[in-house]
Amino acid sequence: MGGIETMFDAARRQDEAGLVEKKVLTMPSFTTLGGQIIRDVRIGYETYGKLNARGDNAILIAHYFSGTSHAAGRYAHADTEPGYWDAIIGPGKAIDTERYFVVSADTLANLNTSDPNVVTIGPASLNPETGKPYGMSFPIVTIRDFVNVQKALVDALGIRKLHAVAGPSMGSMQAIEWATAFPDMVERVVAVIPAGLEADPYLVGTLNVWTAPILLDPDWNNGDYYGRHGPYKGLAMALKTIVLNGRHPGWANAAFGRKPATGAGDLLREFSSRYAIEEVLDQAATSKVCWMDANSLLYTAKACQHYSLGHQGKVLDAVRRIQASILLIPAASDLLMLPHYASKAAASLRACGKSVEYFELEGDGGHFDGLLAIGQADGILRKFLSH
Amino acid sequence: MGGIETMFDAARRQDEAGLVEKKVLTMPSFTTLGGQIIRDVRIGYETYGKLNARGDNAILIAHYFSGTSHAAGRYAHADTEPGYWDAIIGPGKAIDTERYFVVSADTLANLNTSDPNVVTIGPASLNPETGKPYGMSFPIVTIRDFVNVQKALVDALGIRKLHAVAGPSMGSMQAIEWATAFPDMVERVVAVIPAGLEADPYLVGTLNVWTAPILLDPDWNNGDYYGRHGPYKGLAMALKTIVLNGRHPGWANAAFGRKPATGAGDLLREFSSRYAIEEVLDQAATSKVCWMDANSLLYTAKACQHYSLGHQGKVLDAVRRIQASILLIPAASDLLMLPHYASKAAASLRACGKSVEYFELEGDGGHFDGLLAIGQADGILRKFLSH
Repeated sequence: MGGIETMFDAARRQDEAGLVEKKVLTMPSFTTLGGQIIRDVRIGYETYGKLNARGDNAILIAHYFSGTSHAAGRYAHADTEPGYWDAIIGPGKAIDTERYFVVSADTLANLNTSDPNVVTIGPASLNPETGKPYGMSFPIVTIRDFVNVQKALVDALGIRKLHAVAGPSMGSMQAIEWATAFPDMVERVVAVIPAGLEADPYLVGTLNVWTAPILLDPDWNNGDYYGRHGPYKGLAMALKTIVLNGRHPGWANAAFGRKPATGAGDLLREFSSRYAIEEVLDQAATSKVCWMDANSLLYTAKACQHYSLGHQGKVLDAVRRIQASILLIPAASDLLMLPHYASKAAASLRACGKSVEYFELEGDGGHFDGLLAIGQADGILRKFLSH
Repeated sequence: MGGIETMFDAARRQDEAGLVEKKVLTMPSFTTLGGQIIRDVRIGYETYGKLNARGDNAILIAHYFSGTSHAAGRYAHADTEPGYWDAIIGPGKAIDTERYFVVSADTLANLNTSDPNVVTIGPASLNPETGKPYGMSFPIVTIRDFVNVQKALVDALGIRKLHAVAGPSMGSMQAIEWATAFPDMVERVVAVIPAGLEADPYLVGTLNVWTAPILLDPDWNNGDYYGRHGPYKGLAMALKTIVLNGRHPGWANAAFGRKPATGAGDLLREFSSRYAIEEVLDQAATSKVCWMDANSLLYTAKACQHYSLGHQGKVLDAVRRIQASILLIPAASDLLMLPHYASKAAASLRACGKSVEYFELEGDGGHFDGLLAIGQADGILRKFLSH
């Protein structure tokens, strides 16, 4: 009977945690780091678990570049895939939703403007002053702005302390920025496949290369393409580059090797004949084009380029404000956020007397191991969150 | 007096070796690996040093993706820069032109069609049958085709044995291909920043990303742009990506850090304001656009994608034919031809009983360390070439 009860409980818990509801934060006005005002802000968020009476068991999850607030669970039982970090967020998991109240919000200028589960405001939104989409007149937003929106959300939810802020990639930028922006609210930071304490100039260059094909596409039309044919080719090319940069030869070899693409003709005689890896990259890119907005990709890339704890002073001055313990989790085969960025950050943090733990994900899947192989961090996460 | 004589000799030797003359190989007809015929082939080459009577002191140098046959020396005393491997090729240098007869040839479909010192045939050349540029009707050429042209040159020059074939990056592909194509002619292979024994599928994907902006540029016009405005924006973007992929954060940090670009306005308020690294990448790319042909870049990328010792059988069958000793010289910080490619190649070669030496260039300059930091290999090169 005990066994059956346990199974029943587990199923019930999974039901509760697995079905996720999108909620919306509204802000009449938001002032960006650059001093510009955005009116009628609406930002989507999800929560898993329950806030305790003291308001101090919350964990905030910040999403990656092309991600959304859907960090865990399913919207419906029929969903084929759960949220991106479902391996570590849920009842009994490392980020245990029976203990913690987990919150995750969509960023400003989120890429996935056509995803019905994303609520964001950005260049594709209507400017209430003109009744037309902002396009490139939308204010520049930064990682700090993402954090400031999340602060408003956290306050609105009655959260008084963040047991942790965690996020992969661009989410790591937000997590670390939180610890310097609101040091007495953040007890722990979990920075996965992290950029470090600022966007390295090499990363700034990489982000430039991601966005360049959109600017090159005549259909971009200086960002004024809403209601007409958008810069889909430029966007697809940007996404292809992102997928490639997010991966590693290990992935390409395991999945396709040097196989020709479906229906490829004579590779030595037909210029259009190509390899499977080329086809797969194009498919991965094209499948996302209908969900994503090219201008929003430009804005999100700009936010990442501007990421620096030193934007209001020097980086180390900001680091000194940090009260949180920090867990850095790079991926060994990451070719985008090089493990070098994490070890450099660890050295700077330690030099300022901060508590730092470092755990490297093994594997040869590249940057995306921070999403797909995060299960490896289960043990270190449980330990880090419990002490 | 001895000292003065020595200085005099050194100056005279430098004069002789430093002034390089471009020569041209002509072939009435060349059949590609794909079985297509190219007529009236003209290929530029340079030689340094003198062939001995036995014809066995020759070293062939094969160039990299965007390179030319100008491996060493100067065309005129006023030249600001010598050839790319001048640090290791010349009188008394590791590849000693007082001992060796060094030969270097332009590849088929060489990118630098507007460089007056490059002689090549490719999509920008006139098709004698139509009197118009080939454009995309030029036959697909491969690394093996580059090698076959070099074989014709080597035969024409009376070379009977190659003491070594050496090359960086795409040049490494040619060097290794030589050892399997003409095993009894090649005594040593020096593969610098090497791709390994075939283009990794991840590299195939990277090359796809390099070429994609050209295909996206409306001025490309399916390759038919000669005599009108060419796909300069797409070409510049391709070159920008190549420069970035060829580098590493170490370079970006040392040179620019997170400095804003010249004349940048408020980074938080003006979307067009950018960082120095972005400006530098664009300048590096744009400065080369006037020398290079977009279609030729597509063809050279295709040649690299098709690089595999296994194209006429399996890779290991080809490896077993190799008689040469092989020296692999990856660069530690290479993000394009990962050191992993070199160590994988070393393992395969050793498993087939081949003689392999392995030397890693230190530094944080990325792939380009195979050109710019090649001086580090001076000692290992001298030793490898002398036993």
